[in-house]
Amino acid sequence: MNLSKLLLGRRLANREHEDKKIGWKEAIPAMGLDGLGSSSYGPEAALTILIPLGALGLVYIGPVMGCIVTLLAILYFSYRQTLAAYPTSGGAYVVAKENLGEYPSLLAAAALMIDYVLNVAVGVSAGVGALVSAMPGLHPYILPLCLGVVLLVMLANLRGTGEAGWLFALPTYVFILCFLGAIGYGLVGIVWEGQPAPVIAPPPLGPVTQGATIWLLMHAFASGCTAMTGVEAVSNGMGSFRQPVMRNAYITLTVIVVILGLLLSGVAAIATTYKIGAMDQTKAGYQSVLSQLIAAVAGHGAFYYIAMASLLSVLCLSANTSFVGFPRLCQMVAADGYLPKAFAQPGRRLMFTVGIVFLSVFAGLLLIVFRGITDNLIPLFAIGAFLTFTVSQAGMTMHWRRQSKKYPAKLTMNAVGAISTGAALIIILVAKFVEGAWITLIAVPVTIVILKSIKGYYRSLQRELRKPGPIRVDDIEPPTVLVVTERWNRLSERAIKFALTISPDVVAVHFVRLGGPDRDESEKAIREEWQVEVEEPLAARGLTPPRLMLIPAPYRQLHEPLLRLIEKLDADSPERRVAVLIPETVKDRWWQNLLHMNRAGRLRAKLVRLGGPRLTVATVPWRLYREEQAAT
Amino acid sequence: MNLSKLLLGRRLANREHEDKKIGWKEAIPAMGLDGLGSSSYGPEAALTILIPLGALGLVYIGPVMGCIVTLLAILYFSYRQTLAAYPTSGGAYVVAKENLGEYPSLLAAAALMIDYVLNVAVGVSAGVGALVSAMPGLHPYILPLCLGVVLLVMLANLRGTGEAGWLFALPTYVFILCFLGAIGYGLVGIVWEGQPAPVIAPPPLGPVTQGATIWLLMHAFASGCTAMTGVEAVSNGMGSFRQPVMRNAYITLTVIVVILGLLLSGVAAIATTYKIGAMDQTKAGYQSVLSQLIAAVAGHGAFYYIAMASLLSVLCLSANTSFVGFPRLCQMVAADGYLPKAFAQPGRRLMFTVGIVFLSVFAGLLLIVFRGITDNLIPLFAIGAFLTFTVSQAGMTMHWRRQSKKYPAKLTMNAVGAISTGAALIIILVAKFVEGAWITLIAVPVTIVILKSIKGYYRSLQRELRKPGPIRVDDIEPPTVLVVTERWNRLSERAIKFALTISPDVVAVHFVRLGGPDRDESEKAIREEWQVEVEEPLAARGLTPPRLMLIPAPYRQLHEPLLRLIEKLDADSPERRVAVLIPETVKDRWWQNLLHMNRAGRLRAKLVRLGGPRLTVATVPWRLYREEQAAT
Repeated sequence: MNLSKLLLGRRLANREHEDKKIGWKEAIPAMGLDGLGSSSYGPEAALTILIPLGALGLVYIGPVMGCIVTLLAILYFSYRQTLAAYPTSGGAYVVAKENLGEYPSLLAAAALMIDYVLNVAVGVSAGVGALVSAMPGLHPYILPLCLGVVLLVMLANLRGTGEAGWLFALPTYVFILCFLGAIGYGLVGIVWEGQPAPVIAPPPLGPVTQGATIWLLMHAFASGCTAMTGVEAVSNGMGSFRQPVMRNAYITLTVIVVILGLLLSGVAAIATTYKIGAMDQTKAGYQSVLSQLIAAVAGHGAFYYIAMASLLSVLCLSANTSFVGFPRLCQMVAADGYLPKAFAQPGRRLMFTVGIVFLSVFAGLLLIVFRGITDNLIPLFAIGAFLTFTVSQAGMTMHWRRQSKKYPAKLTMNAVGAISTGAALIIILVAKFVEGAWITLIAVPVTIVILKSIKGYYRSLQRELRKPGPIRVDDIEPPTVLVVTERWNRLSERAIKFALTISPDVVAVHFVRLGGPDRDESEKAIREEWQVEVEEPLAARGLTPPRLMLIPAPYRQLHEPLLRLIEKLDADSPERRVAVLIPETVKDRWWQNLLHMNRAGRLRAKLVRLGGPRLTVATVPWRLYREEQAAT
Repeated sequence: MNLSKLLLGRRLANREHEDKKIGWKEAIPAMGLDGLGSSSYGPEAALTILIPLGALGLVYIGPVMGCIVTLLAILYFSYRQTLAAYPTSGGAYVVAKENLGEYPSLLAAAALMIDYVLNVAVGVSAGVGALVSAMPGLHPYILPLCLGVVLLVMLANLRGTGEAGWLFALPTYVFILCFLGAIGYGLVGIVWEGQPAPVIAPPPLGPVTQGATIWLLMHAFASGCTAMTGVEAVSNGMGSFRQPVMRNAYITLTVIVVILGLLLSGVAAIATTYKIGAMDQTKAGYQSVLSQLIAAVAGHGAFYYIAMASLLSVLCLSANTSFVGFPRLCQMVAADGYLPKAFAQPGRRLMFTVGIVFLSVFAGLLLIVFRGITDNLIPLFAIGAFLTFTVSQAGMTMHWRRQSKKYPAKLTMNAVGAISTGAALIIILVAKFVEGAWITLIAVPVTIVILKSIKGYYRSLQRELRKPGPIRVDDIEPPTVLVVTERWNRLSERAIKFALTISPDVVAVHFVRLGGPDRDESEKAIREEWQVEVEEPLAARGLTPPRLMLIPAPYRQLHEPLLRLIEKLDADSPERRVAVLIPETVKDRWWQNLLHMNRAGRLRAKLVRLGGPRLTVATVPWRLYREEQAAT
């Protein structure tokens, strides 16, 4: 209890909810880390595909990145419209649910969920991978480092990112400043000097081994599209914004997209001028495109190290965007009954604890299975994002069509968005099918089936419990009360006294031969004790004393003989309710459980499971050590 | 449920207890495996100490083994007297408890428990070690093989060795036949031919590197004494014998001790004649003493392999003796309150399940910690046995002294036993102190402290619960009943109906704002539903309808607002009892628990823990899927 207070902070009441919401300054790091981080691997991924073209590849990187930035611009305007239309929550799931129906909404939900989990695993492993290539001494600790980052981000999010925001904000803003600065400085140099000499020349490009084909360019485009993952984060996170929601959301989306667009175009322009190409990651001396770029523009000074450190942090923490989006998505899906109810329950700090922990555990498992090296997952990972884009834009298109007042411009905008992201999705699917896209094509329908089954379960549960019409009171005869007793002690006394207050028909049940064949028990002594301690004093006060029944437990289990007794009682008076009172000592410390056999708990569980519909099971607790003064 | 039936067999009733008891034919393997198995490492251990003497060592092995066999004879006669005096259970614990008091009995119990656990780990690892040296291909699987043997022996004992007896009986009797046969054949040859030529000559003995000192001979004696571990098994296992108990016990003890004595003397005689010495285990070409002996007498034929296989099995299964003794010892100690009650509870098959599982887990942990190589534990291991011998014989000496009719012969016999085993214990402690005896010297008092603390806990528990005098009935006013409800459904209906049968003072509690700040709830709708479905129909029937209270749960937890409400009720009428009824859906399948939040279970646990002494908590169960027809 104290540990969770220390780690997570004091718990928050419902009314403190508003305080936990964030403005655009916190939202840019929280929701933008994924998108901004992908600027480092998007261009690199495209250039990697172009390696076989040698220096010729640089001719094509401009047009390829141009297509991607154009797509980004289309997405930006499409999503602005979505935010305006769905100001409380504009995620693809909600848009699809309201405009396209159940299955498209589940498609969006499944695609998003998979995407979020992959993003955590890929982001963390990419960041740690970059860190390890900078400090090779850390190589044996890749997996612990990855899991440590996941744990850190999980804890920060369980607290609520409002407070831990600086953890994400600092590297994000340093990253933006460094890279926009470097690119700006580089571009100014290019414009000023025409063809400037790099401070540190990038390694020479490889030989031409292949001609440019449409397939290769498609492939480069598909790989470059990973740069756009994370753009939908703002629409999913609308619920996190404080007032004025729309203004905060617009600023956040605009800043993220504009910076991402500048980074992508800038990297393409500078790479073309300075002849920076991708290098083979598996070979010694590998340098990433951004590392070459900073070195070419500014050399290997302090600035280089600050910039690379901020890049590392942004990559490592890009997982955080998933932690903002995933729990919120799951909450909406759970509120609709497609996920367990626990996903919709705000925890101690008003965050959706279950979703956060689920995401961490799943991403952690992925990292463990792939031992912290998740390169193979990257191809899978743009698919979810583009599936989401397409479903969301298609939904928005339907939305405008259905409005009574027509908005042809808005409809066209979203339709263009849907068609272009849909086309990109098909290109990515085709280009990446063998590399792993097929896995997503399996995982998405499997997830949808699971979501549908959960909904089916809740629906049948609700049907079973629904009570049509008012209460029907047949009889209010007091129940037969069975009190489980051991030898006469304070616990038995408390249970018997309670039983007497709720019914005149009380039976005390004492099990014999419970301790096994070697245990000697005198039934006579038990009966005599009962007579002296209970029957006579009660009779003296004019009360009906409870009967004492000694029941053999030949198999040393309590529930079977008790259930048989209840069956017999049922046969005698089938309408009668039965209540079983079980005295139980309450243990405060874990080790106490080792010293007790928990017969009460096990009996209770069995009775609740196996008893008939007329059976109620009550626990009469005795709190060890704490009742000495209370009991007289 | 079905799995345990498959593995353990049908469960047994108390009355079937007698059927599970064993006669001497089954007892010799069950209780003798430890003792007989130690004949393989006792002489070997003594000869290993004598290695530095070279061929001269063989001059001393006869006298050393002579001392040990003499000690064995003394023990035999002492233990016969113990069996006669304590025909139901003659273990050192009982003898010490009855004659020497609490601390000596706990000393015996602790020594025996440690000895039993060590015996399992050492026996299994020695057997598997021998197996692996015969089949080096199995070397990577030492630990899994060890754990597999422990698991097998555990399962056989959970079933009850009566049925699985053949598993132990076959190798035991084959072992006895082979080795007695080989030794007899060898001795006949020696007597016949004087100095016969070995069929396969043992490797030559090493050079003399040291003279014979008292210290070395003491050390050899101390090491050889491991051959005597396991002799106390019969006295501990008296409860397992079927009628006639005494005859079965005598035969078992006699057979085990006589065969062990023959084996020890025979090995010494043949080793002397054929010049068989111990070899360095860590060097290549190592052969055990018994392997050399069989080869010298009978060559490397089929007989050699049968004999060695039976030796392997006996070693592996010698752990079984611990499984007979340990649970029974723990049962007695637990019945006296020094161990958790669960150790005294017979399980499904009338075996002491907890003791058996505890022994297996502890031995398994030892094996895992030592990776299946427990050679370092062997020095620790004779100490427990000799401590037990000494305490037991000392107790018997006191026993005879206290008898009204004096038995000077019996007293002398047990006193001689106590003094000689005590002397041996001191020799072993001194000789083995640095090698590991100090560990036992720490473990024994730690165990005693644990046993005493457990007793203290039970004593204070009993004191707290003891009820001096008869029941005191102050009032039998019906309790205030709080029914936890959600929206109106069958579960709420059932709970309300039950509440009406036990008290006229019923309050329905409905928590609001439980789902967090985003959840909209109409209190008005809840109240209207309550009025239509409950209040009006009950009032129409002339019953007092329960009040409905809407309680906010600002921290999304149920127990706090409910406890506050109970406090308020207590303040209004401090003598009143309170019963909380919690409706709960009962889940049959594990996955259902993932789909429910178990609010009912958590609320129940919190109330039971934190509620006052006047609070009773009842579960009104609804069995999902199984009540559709029952509920109308």
